Amino acid sequence: MTQETNHQQNNQPNRTQPSPQLVSLLQGKLNTLVGKSSGYIENLPEDVKRRICGLNFYQSEHAKLEAKFQEEILALEKKYLKLYQPYYEKRAKVVRGECEPAEEEITAGASLFEKEKERQAQEGDPATEKNKEVQGDPAAEKSKEEGAGGSCKGIPEFWLTAMKNLFTISENITERDEEALKHLIDIRISYLENPGFQLEFEFEENKFFSNTLLVKTYYYQDEPGYGGDYVYDHAEGTKIDWKEGMDLTITVETKRQKHKGTNKTRVVKTTVPAASFFQFFNPPPPDCEEEDDDDLDQRLETDYQIGEDIKEKLIPRAIDWYTGKALEYEDMLDDDYFDEGDDYDEGDYDEIDDDDEDGDDEGVSKCLRTSLTIL
Amino acid sequence: MTQETNHQQNNQPNRTQPSPQLVSLLQGKLNTLVGKSSGYIENLPEDVKRRICGLNFYQSEHAKLEAKFQEEILALEKKYLKLYQPYYEKRAKVVRGECEPAEEEITAGASLFEKEKERQAQEGDPATEKNKEVQGDPAAEKSKEEGAGGSCKGIPEFWLTAMKNLFTISENITERDEEALKHLIDIRISYLENPGFQLEFEFEENKFFSNTLLVKTYYYQDEPGYGGDYVYDHAEGTKIDWKEGMDLTITVETKRQKHKGTNKTRVVKTTVPAASFFQFFNPPPPDCEEEDDDDLDQRLETDYQIGEDIKEKLIPRAIDWYTGKALEYEDMLDDDYFDEGDDYDEGDYDEIDDDDEDGDDEGVSKCLRTSLTIL
Repeated sequence: MTQETNHQQNNQPNRTQPSPQLVSLLQGKLNTLVGKSSGYIENLPEDVKRRICGLNFYQSEHAKLEAKFQEEILALEKKYLKLYQPYYEKRAKVVRGECEPAEEEITAGASLFEKEKERQAQEGDPATEKNKEVQGDPAAEKSKEEGAGGSCKGIPEFWLTAMKNLFTISENITERDEEALKHLIDIRISYLENPGFQLEFEFEENKFFSNTLLVKTYYYQDEPGYGGDYVYDHAEGTKIDWKEGMDLTITVETKRQKHKGTNKTRVVKTTVPAASFFQFFNPPPPDCEEEDDDDLDQRLETDYQIGEDIKEKLIPRAIDWYTGKALEYEDMLDDDYFDEGDDYDEGDYDEIDDDDEDGDDEGVSKCLRTSLTIL
Repeated sequence: MTQETNHQQNNQPNRTQPSPQLVSLLQGKLNTLVGKSSGYIENLPEDVKRRICGLNFYQSEHAKLEAKFQEEILALEKKYLKLYQPYYEKRAKVVRGECEPAEEEITAGASLFEKEKERQAQEGDPATEKNKEVQGDPAAEKSKEEGAGGSCKGIPEFWLTAMKNLFTISENITERDEEALKHLIDIRISYLENPGFQLEFEFEENKFFSNTLLVKTYYYQDEPGYGGDYVYDHAEGTKIDWKEGMDLTITVETKRQKHKGTNKTRVVKTTVPAASFFQFFNPPPPDCEEEDDDDLDQRLETDYQIGEDIKEKLIPRAIDWYTGKALEYEDMLDDDYFDEGDDYDEGDYDEIDDDDEDGDDEGVSKCLRTSLTIL
């Protein structure tokens, strides 16, 4: 419990021996003590300032309890992860095609879908209305051809389809990524001994990389944050063993250079980072000072947000993200789910050549569009 | 535990006797089962659809555990509220002027302020920089006059000052409200037997109303929501016993009418609802159908948001809202804290006549501005 110990060292007052230095703070120096103020507090009567200091001490004691509360919440999360585990394991086996659900489970699940449909019909759910418009989309047609009367192993592209409905994730999935993510067959979570958690991505054999397990680990800070919350410290990811020429996180740019003396041309290949979901496994290092602060802050925020969404939304309710049901509740809880509340109009997007394989930002936009037509 | 019982009735499958009706759903009708879809799922092979139904059943079992998890979190919240209570009671006594903090508590609190200041100086906190600009504001000058060498009871306007730093609340506080909220001497929370909570606002004697306690109660729905979360059902508030002509929640409009026959004029007084924080105690009723849906949804959302902020932010850390420290963390956690991320420039606001007492929207804008100069 390093965390709690550190915390106490910082905030616990020296009750038995008030140091002379601290007492002197109260005599004349209180004017500049309070963090954010415009003179309001500095100009209060001395006895009121002393009361404010007292309240500040009570608050620090309260904060220690808040940190303990967060510790207990985390313990509860771990307890329930163990209880959820059997369902996650069954899900993984069905997705991988290792076993089939029991007949009664299938019947019960179908009945729940039916009830859900009735509820939506009663409420006149606008989402259902909207879906009518995209019935004939190309993805569905393709799926029809493949599926008609056919049979296959497990649930193909289960995790890719679910991830494409989660906006924070889908906006980072390029077309090239999709090919690799089709081979993603499970996502699991486990907690670290020290505060933090680990996301495990299991892949079947594929042409892109030789790893079968990609891991992303999030470490929390030892010190609790404001209000006792855990605060992200940094993240680490598995080094991906890309197969020859298959690295999705880089683009090879070819330049022709002419030699000034000989007038000969030569071809120079340079490698530049490409937009890719797999950058997720190469998060900014803890004390990264290469980039300007705003850019780094943005990268860190995105990285943590994706991790949170996988932990809190995707893993607990993957089937609902696969079917799109989860989106209905996402809208209810967060109006900002889509930036600026814009309607995504097909007309807002330029057509992109399918041969465009350079993984730039355009590729990402296309992906968002694809994701939306699946809903 | 009505909640859990209802939940199970809805989701638990009939394991022993699968009804023929349910089985028939699987034979040909699965095409229309899934809530949000564009044909993607409908066109999957039958065996994949059956697996999806199986996963849907596992998810419903998982959801029951999630509801239990939320119950345990609530129990933990109740446990910690009891542990926080002694600090809240000490705070209330100091604010009311019923007792003084111990000397060692004052010393410890002052030392914590000093450490906070050092931290801000090291980090070059922009908030501290900004504050320099508003040092000479009129509110501070006024406070100086009142306070210079003087003495007073407790911490005057403690809760009003804290509330003015919480944006969701301050945007609903008019100038007229402030006069009444100066008499607010404690805010407390307690949990209901059924899921829900109650906020108690204690007032000292004042010229506006005769109640000394205003209560706002939030009831949760019996059924857990998506992901097991508790869902707000409705809220109720104390009927305020306004003193003659002091009701802050209404405006009296005077109209002169001319009689068509006699040509005599008469004065007609009509009462219209006014913008006021005290509308908080008159929330929309459970099955309100008077207004259009969007308007009602907005009112409900604001009502619940204020309740949440008082429960989760104001009561746990009132002194930090009073000093403004809490705002620093608010910015970190939520970029949308101020709409559209605009800078609030003094030049953006028109001067409003101080005599303007009609409690309209202009009064609310002024209040926001006052709140910001206090930081």
